[in-house]
Amino acid sequence: MSNRNETPARIGTEDLEALAMGAAFLGAGGGGDPYIGRLLAKHAVETCGMPEIVRPEDLPDDAQVFTSAMIGAPTVLIEKGASGEDIDRSLTRLAEVTGRKPDAISPIEIGGFNSMIPIVAAARARLPLVDCDGMGRAFPELQMVTFNVHGVAASPAVLVDEHLETVVIDALDAKRTEDLARASAIVMGLSAAISCYPMSGRQLKAHCVPGTLRIALGIGRALEEGRSRGAPVESLLAYLKTTEYYRYSKELFDGKITDIERRTERGFNVGHLRIARLNGGAEEMTVEFQNENLVARLDGRTVAIVPDLVSVIDRETGVPITTEALKYGQRVKIIGTSAAPVMRSEKALATFGPRAFGIDEDFRAIETLHPELG
Amino acid sequence: MSNRNETPARIGTEDLEALAMGAAFLGAGGGGDPYIGRLLAKHAVETCGMPEIVRPEDLPDDAQVFTSAMIGAPTVLIEKGASGEDIDRSLTRLAEVTGRKPDAISPIEIGGFNSMIPIVAAARARLPLVDCDGMGRAFPELQMVTFNVHGVAASPAVLVDEHLETVVIDALDAKRTEDLARASAIVMGLSAAISCYPMSGRQLKAHCVPGTLRIALGIGRALEEGRSRGAPVESLLAYLKTTEYYRYSKELFDGKITDIERRTERGFNVGHLRIARLNGGAEEMTVEFQNENLVARLDGRTVAIVPDLVSVIDRETGVPITTEALKYGQRVKIIGTSAAPVMRSEKALATFGPRAFGIDEDFRAIETLHPELG
Repeated sequence: MSNRNETPARIGTEDLEALAMGAAFLGAGGGGDPYIGRLLAKHAVETCGMPEIVRPEDLPDDAQVFTSAMIGAPTVLIEKGASGEDIDRSLTRLAEVTGRKPDAISPIEIGGFNSMIPIVAAARARLPLVDCDGMGRAFPELQMVTFNVHGVAASPAVLVDEHLETVVIDALDAKRTEDLARASAIVMGLSAAISCYPMSGRQLKAHCVPGTLRIALGIGRALEEGRSRGAPVESLLAYLKTTEYYRYSKELFDGKITDIERRTERGFNVGHLRIARLNGGAEEMTVEFQNENLVARLDGRTVAIVPDLVSVIDRETGVPITTEALKYGQRVKIIGTSAAPVMRSEKALATFGPRAFGIDEDFRAIETLHPELG
Repeated sequence: MSNRNETPARIGTEDLEALAMGAAFLGAGGGGDPYIGRLLAKHAVETCGMPEIVRPEDLPDDAQVFTSAMIGAPTVLIEKGASGEDIDRSLTRLAEVTGRKPDAISPIEIGGFNSMIPIVAAARARLPLVDCDGMGRAFPELQMVTFNVHGVAASPAVLVDEHLETVVIDALDAKRTEDLARASAIVMGLSAAISCYPMSGRQLKAHCVPGTLRIALGIGRALEEGRSRGAPVESLLAYLKTTEYYRYSKELFDGKITDIERRTERGFNVGHLRIARLNGGAEEMTVEFQNENLVARLDGRTVAIVPDLVSVIDRETGVPITTEALKYGQRVKIIGTSAAPVMRSEKALATFGPRAFGIDEDFRAIETLHPELG
């Protein structure tokens, strides 16, 4: 249990690489490649200092919290990055619209790119960064967060592009916010800074997934430490067992990618991959994805399914591989990991369970699918 | 010369039908069917009173003026109409964003639907309505107005849908405002109230096309009067000759529609029609359109071209026919009419001349194409 009731996480510039790598693991194939995000965060921190990391419970109930992220196509986001001014503008404009400046910044998701953007936002705005997020993983759409599941309004939402063009959205609900934001993001060249889900400290505390920055850093450090002794996965699994949410975790497969089908649908990176045993064994794993990996099946039998995490990592280095970076012939391990309990409630599953992604199958927890984990 | 230096137009509830009909003529096939717009205006005027109609020159230089219109697909707009609250919200939100309430409302275009909406807006907001617009006709895109040609910013622009969902756009230029507004309008079901081009009285006076409400009413009355004696076109042409901009006007063809090709492209109503002589003569007229009629050709020879007006009217009643209402077999007359001089400058033609619509041809004024008009 490494994420509650501890002193706030201390994260230094030297930790950004491990944090980005751990966040990419939790991103479950989505959230964008961490590399550019890490460079942006490094630059912001060198210029403005590392933001103070606070725990959700440190926030007053009446604090004003904004999320900060990039929205668009991961492939474009990692090409274009963000200038910083676009991120600043998304916060200042949301402050104008809500009539109140933020007291703290929260990540909306944990994933390679979108774990780094809130660091950039908080550093540049000289605001504390809250150690939490709205899902403890990454998801492709704005409504797929615990805040929405529990009635926090996604809008007003502010999008800002590289030219500092701005779109402010007030919508009926989070799905409509997503639809309107997605339409603008497409015109903005599939890359825009977004600040949305303005909420109180009380709302954030009640509905966030706490401690995910600290855990991402722990994962990154475990992968680094394990790699140095040639056992990244063992080190990863050992660390995950010490955490509150992610303690049910399992290496689901070890093999090489023999087939990958990937297409762009409605601005998403959609497809599947097939993985065969390196030794030529007959077993085959398939992984379906929509930006994030959604379901892993072993010879057609589901072995991990959304919102639980399916992560693809390099089998030698343990480095997480995002869906847009998957390649034929890559030697990978597939890791399944339990999602936070708040992500598995009936209400939550209606928003981001298997059927929300068109998979005609009930959610089954990884520790149910693999009773030896329980 | 009926549009300058006269007393302000007096427009009563009883004039709305004639005004809508005249505006539909000036809409040149675009701007939406006037019927629903007229009902909306009638209801607003009966509830809130007819707005005061002021001349542009009556406005102080430092007045704040907002345009008001509907954006979307004409076919959807005339189905869904507007609740009025959506129009109100577009104005109040733009006032919040600009930090200043409007002192008057201006039409952005003259066309069946979008001449009526500013009446609704002004009546409900108890604001004066300025007798002018930004083109003296209708056009399909937000950047295609004199205000943009002369450097007035189109944004901030506010879109509001039937659920009062709101999108506020701040873009680099009018074309980007159009792109972002169009993307939101599509998500909003191709029907939204929009208020944009917030400007000063000085800017409006310098760049508007003045008197177009008064002239639209004059056209409508001329058509009505002419119809009562079986000569609507003669009456129309006689009236147009008394106006400042529209005095070069000509019946280009009299016949029946023998072919119509219409498709939806990027949210626009695009196509062409062919018209043959009723008496079986060999001559044929074609009219190309994109929401509005763009060019009329007689046996392949251009006889009127955008931004000059090409209007299709019922040959018996003189009632203007919008492009979405064109039908095979309709007996129609095609009228070509000169645009206002401000619409024919080199700068203006770069924004809405033939090539802006993909027609590989220079603009030639109707009085040049038909020297007998000069």
